[in-house]
Amino acid sequence: MSTDMKTQHKFQTIADIIHRQIQNDVWLVGEKLPSIRTICREYNISLNTATRAYSELERRTLIESRPRSGYFVLPNHRNQISIPTISQPTELMVQEIESKLINKVFDTINDDNITRLSLGVPDEALLPVAKLNKTMMQAIRKLPGSGTRYEEIQGNLNLRRNIARWSFTWGGNLSADDIVITAGAMDAIACCMMTLTQPGDTIALESPVFFGILQLAKSLGLNVLELPTHPTNGIDIAALENNLSQIKACLLVSNFNNPLGSCMPENHKKKVVELLNKHNIPLIEDDLYGDVYFTSKRPLPCKSFDRTGSVLWCGSVSKTLAPGYRIGWVAPGKYKSQIIRWKLIHSVSTTTLTQEAIALFLENGRYENHLRKMRNTLYTNSLQFIRVISQHFPEGTRISHPQGGFVLWIECPKPIDTNELYERAIKHKISIAPGRMFTLQPQFHNCMRLSYGLPWTDYLERQLALLGTLAKSLLK
Amino acid sequence: MSTDMKTQHKFQTIADIIHRQIQNDVWLVGEKLPSIRTICREYNISLNTATRAYSELERRTLIESRPRSGYFVLPNHRNQISIPTISQPTELMVQEIESKLINKVFDTINDDNITRLSLGVPDEALLPVAKLNKTMMQAIRKLPGSGTRYEEIQGNLNLRRNIARWSFTWGGNLSADDIVITAGAMDAIACCMMTLTQPGDTIALESPVFFGILQLAKSLGLNVLELPTHPTNGIDIAALENNLSQIKACLLVSNFNNPLGSCMPENHKKKVVELLNKHNIPLIEDDLYGDVYFTSKRPLPCKSFDRTGSVLWCGSVSKTLAPGYRIGWVAPGKYKSQIIRWKLIHSVSTTTLTQEAIALFLENGRYENHLRKMRNTLYTNSLQFIRVISQHFPEGTRISHPQGGFVLWIECPKPIDTNELYERAIKHKISIAPGRMFTLQPQFHNCMRLSYGLPWTDYLERQLALLGTLAKSLLK
Repeated sequence: MSTDMKTQHKFQTIADIIHRQIQNDVWLVGEKLPSIRTICREYNISLNTATRAYSELERRTLIESRPRSGYFVLPNHRNQISIPTISQPTELMVQEIESKLINKVFDTINDDNITRLSLGVPDEALLPVAKLNKTMMQAIRKLPGSGTRYEEIQGNLNLRRNIARWSFTWGGNLSADDIVITAGAMDAIACCMMTLTQPGDTIALESPVFFGILQLAKSLGLNVLELPTHPTNGIDIAALENNLSQIKACLLVSNFNNPLGSCMPENHKKKVVELLNKHNIPLIEDDLYGDVYFTSKRPLPCKSFDRTGSVLWCGSVSKTLAPGYRIGWVAPGKYKSQIIRWKLIHSVSTTTLTQEAIALFLENGRYENHLRKMRNTLYTNSLQFIRVISQHFPEGTRISHPQGGFVLWIECPKPIDTNELYERAIKHKISIAPGRMFTLQPQFHNCMRLSYGLPWTDYLERQLALLGTLAKSLLK
Repeated sequence: MSTDMKTQHKFQTIADIIHRQIQNDVWLVGEKLPSIRTICREYNISLNTATRAYSELERRTLIESRPRSGYFVLPNHRNQISIPTISQPTELMVQEIESKLINKVFDTINDDNITRLSLGVPDEALLPVAKLNKTMMQAIRKLPGSGTRYEEIQGNLNLRRNIARWSFTWGGNLSADDIVITAGAMDAIACCMMTLTQPGDTIALESPVFFGILQLAKSLGLNVLELPTHPTNGIDIAALENNLSQIKACLLVSNFNNPLGSCMPENHKKKVVELLNKHNIPLIEDDLYGDVYFTSKRPLPCKSFDRTGSVLWCGSVSKTLAPGYRIGWVAPGKYKSQIIRWKLIHSVSTTTLTQEAIALFLENGRYENHLRKMRNTLYTNSLQFIRVISQHFPEGTRISHPQGGFVLWIECPKPIDTNELYERAIKHKISIAPGRMFTLQPQFHNCMRLSYGLPWTDYLERQLALLGTLAKSLLK
């Protein structure tokens, strides 16, 4: 009994020590704590005691354990920050796309001297470049004609098979024959939109929404209906329901939406799909962030609730492996033959080599290994970002708390114009994506999207703090 | 003098011997004759005598010399075959695209057991696969991020620079900044068509015309105006002029057109461009065969006569290097910013790795070396095809005599239905492209396109002869 008592006492002592360290910012939010083994050595305690100390800290919701990664400091509840407000787009007022703004932001995309918080892809440092190279060499050796031949129009069979296999991680029941390979997710979405709509049709989108989708819809002569969207739960289902009669198609980034980071709960997804199925409205589901989850398992896509083949599930490896490979896909349900036909007519086939390389990368388990690391890095980064933003940004700033992906949606106090903030920040070599890029309506002028898909460094922390200071200066 | 006489006599004797050999099919049309050196050895004559013997045969138009390649047997004038008749599309009758037929033909595209006379690309045996592989390895080593990064939207600068440099072969005056890289020529054309037209607009095309262009135009809701086209000189300029008021854009495959093989003479090109410039009608010029010429120099594209920036000059390396790399381009003249914008919105960027590989291949002179060989092989093949077709196809069959490219247009006697011939031929593992694939009008039912971009073998000769026999059987 006394041993037990003593052990209990000891693990609590250790837990208290670390608890104080966390309170005193010895360990920062998002940082990895020393391993159990290190704790044992440092405090000269048993494995059992160290494990119980960490369990105690988990119970106090100060830290969390992540499988195969260790223990990490959770956000500090003393500084809890509100999430952004729910968007309220008004149907009536529709303005032009902020093309000049978008082009300006894009112009900094290849400038390594700029802290590109505006980026829509994870930094190269987070990608498995060396392993992809090896796989590419394999692909060149393996392919007949070393990749000079046209690939099948529908796409590399091995790649389609592996994507189908991969879909089992979300309970998908796809076969290789259900999938069509495209030159990235935007190509998949463009293909879907052009197949499903005519100029003058209306398409329902989230608000805010990735500007590329707005540009695409407008370029095809579509009317855009932006739906109110919750920063955690996604679109307002009632608003969708009220507008069903006028929409021809719906497009949702259902998992870790760009730019909000929202992820629709499963029952919402089910409800939306049932609603759309009932009214025979196709849903283009852009699920290119679904594999980058911080929770214990992958969120299901809307596709998994589809009973009528009306969900066109799109994905890519541009955000997780290789943007420059241009590999995406769509499982177009009942629209498959139309999609294949459109693809044949507009681009014949997708690059042969990069398809095979991605197929091999998926096949041999390298993808899952890479994703595990990437998820941990991104989650830690997201917590670091939230910590620094909560410390340095103006009071009243709201921040999304995404459970996946790599972007944060920041809502500054109303007087702050993020277009103006962009201009000030770029002088300090910081690039952000102002909120007005993500809507066709007069909203989000005080919002911005920040990417945390960058390697976390002291310099980055200073730049992020500086951005907060610049934002504050706009209040004066 | 006696020496001279004797020499004269000797070279004539040798010329007569070879003349008889050619008449007796010892040397077949398109075959390479023994080298001068071999002739010297064989007949124990001087270099001078052998050279003069071959000059004599050239004078008799029995053979021709090709730079760096040797002497080749010309088509036999005794069996001179007529070229196909000029198409006479009637505006009024427009039918649906023969999609089922096209799909059927496409289904055989990856079956190595089939003699694919239907192919729209040269056989892999004609492509420099090993050298491309080396270049690809170089590209992987050279590129930052080994090609995982997004490439610039407009395209790899090095590639654009080399295409601009290459344009000097036809007197082009392009700079890297004038060029936009696309995922193959079809992607370039699709991009141009979508930028220049709206559903309901009319586009003028050659007749017959590559079915992919018909499919693309129809998929965009365009009306297609097929213009009468001469098998050697291209479209009927008067017909174009008469219809200018109703057309929004014009698309021409100006050099070694697919499927006719026609190449517009320079003065025709000039006239067409002046006409279109005057009426402010843009011309999409699909010049993807221009580098594969059998004449002494590359034919000029229409682009070289453009004074107003209204010619959108499209090209690719899909027909000369690597179909599966998906690299094409367009020099869009005054439409450049619209084209770049469309590209950004619809596909972001083109595959990074394959762009760099092609850039390096062009840069180090490998492309010109390869083209020189390829042109000789294809020219020889074209003569072999014409010889075998003239021997084995039904009397009255007409054949195009292309001066470049790799397709022949065959016009059989009227009673022969080439859809029916396709069905019979495929049973013998021969695939052809029936004429009806190349029009929206009730014409060309007795025509077909045959590709000579295949390695010439005895087996191929037998299959081609068999195709002729099958065609004859349809006359009974």
